[in-house]
Amino acid sequence: MTEPASFPPPSDRTRVRRYHQIASYDPQTVHAILDAMPLCHVGYVHNGTPIVTPTLQWRDGDRIFWHASSASRMIDSVLEQDVCVTVSLYDGLVMARSAFSYNINHRSVMIFGRPEKLSETEKAEQLRNMVNKTIPGQWERLRPVTAQELKATTVLGLSITEASAKVRTGPPQDDEADRAFPVWAGVIPVRMQVLPPEPDPHNLPGLEPPAEIASFHIG
Amino acid sequence: MTEPASFPPPSDRTRVRRYHQIASYDPQTVHAILDAMPLCHVGYVHNGTPIVTPTLQWRDGDRIFWHASSASRMIDSVLEQDVCVTVSLYDGLVMARSAFSYNINHRSVMIFGRPEKLSETEKAEQLRNMVNKTIPGQWERLRPVTAQELKATTVLGLSITEASAKVRTGPPQDDEADRAFPVWAGVIPVRMQVLPPEPDPHNLPGLEPPAEIASFHIG
Repeated sequence: MTEPASFPPPSDRTRVRRYHQIASYDPQTVHAILDAMPLCHVGYVHNGTPIVTPTLQWRDGDRIFWHASSASRMIDSVLEQDVCVTVSLYDGLVMARSAFSYNINHRSVMIFGRPEKLSETEKAEQLRNMVNKTIPGQWERLRPVTAQELKATTVLGLSITEASAKVRTGPPQDDEADRAFPVWAGVIPVRMQVLPPEPDPHNLPGLEPPAEIASFHIG
Repeated sequence: MTEPASFPPPSDRTRVRRYHQIASYDPQTVHAILDAMPLCHVGYVHNGTPIVTPTLQWRDGDRIFWHASSASRMIDSVLEQDVCVTVSLYDGLVMARSAFSYNINHRSVMIFGRPEKLSETEKAEQLRNMVNKTIPGQWERLRPVTAQELKATTVLGLSITEASAKVRTGPPQDDEADRAFPVWAGVIPVRMQVLPPEPDPHNLPGLEPPAEIASFHIG
């Protein structure tokens, strides 16, 4: 009998799962997942209700960052409380021989902690990172940011101190007895595919995308 | 001057954004996004701390479902409180002419409410849906579920009553004045790509994947 945890992962803060689904506190594993997927989910409590807000995160060293309008309600909430930021990737459908062993291959990271509001100096530096970690050198090509724009934006930072990663890879892990059951088992891999760039119809004539977009990837 | 909201979306429960980024309460839009992405993020409060757990959701009519081990700590927490379930897709990088107008194309749904634990009858029915909504007819091909497996699994349901969707599509929305700035602008589309199935090395000889896997897609 497989353990209950073999159903698709209701991931749990501390639990370590079996062989193919490993919880890790190794910074390298955590960083690699954060760098693979800019979309994150920030969980916080607002007026007593949990709210999970999708936004973009980027990592610099041992912190992640995201930004919000300075007028956002999220800002006030998250500066007064611990949050949970989760980043996840769907890597494939694991078609086991029993529904009980159905699963997905996935990578995820959860980070817990109290975000802090960046100073003006750090803010400009991290907005540059937001752009340049996606497309190297792009910040320097853009119309320079104005003081008013900077003022309208808040950047939050969160230390990757209390964090864990979960990774599940590989084929189904059916009970050995189930292997005799005559149903095909395997994995349907899924990945993020980057398609060719689509120019803005308002582009000035003759402009080409920077060569550095070739390095853009997700996953 | 663009509004602060033009940075990548610190999505907000009620806010309606401008033209290309539309908040919607239309069930058809909400359902389409839920059906496009099985990975969801369940936000709840456990011992005073918000937790964002990635798991799989599936929709049947006007409810979504997810499951967990009956021994999971999440179960007790979420039955006593409102949760927020968020589903998001990253659809592309919007390379604007200013960092301030940088964005991502995306689709997301937030659902708020109190989950309920399904009865034994509903549970079996919805586990069948979990499998068959991904690969039609697969539940009937699998090694039948046992009473013990059913007992070890809890399925939670959440009504799609208080829900909203956000969708951003299309090219950058720079200020008109910025269009004269000589930098390439456009979108790099990203999508989920399904790759050919990889058979489990333990498969019995001669087994082929069901033809219905051709209908498996994400996004």
